[in-house]
Amino acid sequence: MTDPLTTGATIGILGGGQLGRMLSVAASRLGFRTCIFEPGDDCPASHVTDRHFRADYDDEAALRAFAEAVDVITYEFENIPTSALDILDALRPIRPGREALRISQDRMTEKDFLSGLGLATAPYAAVDNADDLAAAIGRIGTPAILKTRRFGYDGKGQARIMAPGDAQQALADMAGAPAILEGFVKFSHEVSIIAARGADGAVSCFDPGENVHRDGILRSTTVPARLSPAQRTDAVLLAANILNALEYVGVMGVELFVTPRGLIVNEIAPRVHNSGHWTQNGCAVDQFEQHIRAVAGWPLGDGKRHSDVVMENLIGDDIDRIPQIAREAHAALHLYGKVTCKPGRKMGHVNRVKPGAG
Amino acid sequence: MTDPLTTGATIGILGGGQLGRMLSVAASRLGFRTCIFEPGDDCPASHVTDRHFRADYDDEAALRAFAEAVDVITYEFENIPTSALDILDALRPIRPGREALRISQDRMTEKDFLSGLGLATAPYAAVDNADDLAAAIGRIGTPAILKTRRFGYDGKGQARIMAPGDAQQALADMAGAPAILEGFVKFSHEVSIIAARGADGAVSCFDPGENVHRDGILRSTTVPARLSPAQRTDAVLLAANILNALEYVGVMGVELFVTPRGLIVNEIAPRVHNSGHWTQNGCAVDQFEQHIRAVAGWPLGDGKRHSDVVMENLIGDDIDRIPQIAREAHAALHLYGKVTCKPGRKMGHVNRVKPGAG
Repeated sequence: MTDPLTTGATIGILGGGQLGRMLSVAASRLGFRTCIFEPGDDCPASHVTDRHFRADYDDEAALRAFAEAVDVITYEFENIPTSALDILDALRPIRPGREALRISQDRMTEKDFLSGLGLATAPYAAVDNADDLAAAIGRIGTPAILKTRRFGYDGKGQARIMAPGDAQQALADMAGAPAILEGFVKFSHEVSIIAARGADGAVSCFDPGENVHRDGILRSTTVPARLSPAQRTDAVLLAANILNALEYVGVMGVELFVTPRGLIVNEIAPRVHNSGHWTQNGCAVDQFEQHIRAVAGWPLGDGKRHSDVVMENLIGDDIDRIPQIAREAHAALHLYGKVTCKPGRKMGHVNRVKPGAG
Repeated sequence: MTDPLTTGATIGILGGGQLGRMLSVAASRLGFRTCIFEPGDDCPASHVTDRHFRADYDDEAALRAFAEAVDVITYEFENIPTSALDILDALRPIRPGREALRISQDRMTEKDFLSGLGLATAPYAAVDNADDLAAAIGRIGTPAILKTRRFGYDGKGQARIMAPGDAQQALADMAGAPAILEGFVKFSHEVSIIAARGADGAVSCFDPGENVHRDGILRSTTVPARLSPAQRTDAVLLAANILNALEYVGVMGVELFVTPRGLIVNEIAPRVHNSGHWTQNGCAVDQFEQHIRAVAGWPLGDGKRHSDVVMENLIGDDIDRIPQIAREAHAALHLYGKVTCKPGRKMGHVNRVKPGAG
């Protein structure tokens, strides 16, 4: 572990979307500058950063210039090309580390990793062809869901198999990409736990939030989540198990299914997470600052929840409701500065706070 | 009143210090971009803005380019040269308006304005020479304080007159600048009220905070302040009186002395105010966002206090304590990214939050 970064140090962020934007703001709160690496021109993070490196991930010179302009590198998304990581890694520390990226970039590797830690997951099997799929359905049954092993997000690259007859179409939907079949889990609801681990090995978890998805996209997160005291403890223990196993430094989102037989890990994201946005108005130190603290070698901050919060994502034309939301009591708006609105596009979120309930 | 600004609009901010920095972050939260106009190179606001116009206030071309790049102009300090305002004013709306600037740029004009509204102030008299000063001391008595009429801040441009014999030195300290003699007010403590007025005329006040100064610089603000219910009401009424009289749009800081005979207005600042920093961790919508909302023609947000807060300024080598403060429970740090530390320089602040007490 190196010395903590101090005021004036620069944090490099790969990715210029809303997560990069809010990471950049959190970094400023601690006195740091940021540089954003993002191929897109007018990206959300570019509005609140010291410097935007606008280049592709195969632009070696730009990657080098970026790395040399910063003291440490972090990221807002997990699908960073390995070739780019190789270049950056040689020049500056990358936090969270590459093992977390390697594991989370491939659903199969991730499931194997989680199972290896003794954690419960949905039944799964690798699927590279029709024979694999038939065998997997034979073992796991239907309904099940076929997903590309890599580059999936927000429900993209997924096909449901309600009955064995759906198999052929589902496999076609994968367009030849290596896939994984996951059995359906019967769960009552989904929660996620946002966990942080500092460079000193300290682990701190935010209160679990209860998530509602629609069309594969997170719609809302409510804290507190419906969990028994034992389930809460389990959530913290399994998150700590994952972070410690990876010698992780930073914030991770861990999605969990709540079932009568316990918590089942759905997936992990080695970064700040949409389901942790409530922390901006529910805690003295939010997930973005917690991540920056870890990446900068600072002690983790106080992430204790002081208020109940319901976070609602503003997706697509939800933004037409902004004038009304702006007048609501207890409503804290967070907009991403995206001018072009598309269906399914995350445009912002609102945290509705119930004070004094934490 | 014009239409409210929407995502993608740009807010121009005159001044690139910590107030401009936190205004810029608040603007981003509402989906706006910002441009900062600031002669200094590596200013705090430049780290979190879309564009930094680095030019002097007598650079007419730069002022024009700045105005043309933005939709509305606001400011983080009141001592903006009139010639610059004339150029900007012709191109874009300036909010808060120029009357508030004219009044607050001159302590004498400000006192006349407040008195004209029927508000209590310290006794005062204009002092341009030794004769004026002798007459003023004769009327107001000592102890008293001689201040330059313009360009004073954080205790600068002030000289105490404890006895008539101090008059000559005090006048010399003014270096020929027009001055004002203010009588001492016997007060038990000082509070300030951060008041906002929207473009629609709605007024909303944050809870008053209790201020402690040292060496003329604010050290801490505590909410709730020690005030009787009647004093609280008075504070709101007098703030609304001031804002309405100016048809003000934006946030204003109003400093008040608490005396047995009621509240006495010390001074007003037509901008976000150091004594309002506690709102960042005590309210769903803080003073910076409230200001941006007003300037953007949005409805004011919910500034109700949800927690007790003590804001402590981190001045000069106070920043040596950051490693300890970073480990405190309930402590939210806000650092300004200033690399050079000087005695008396505001480097950041910490909000210590007591949850659920609002």
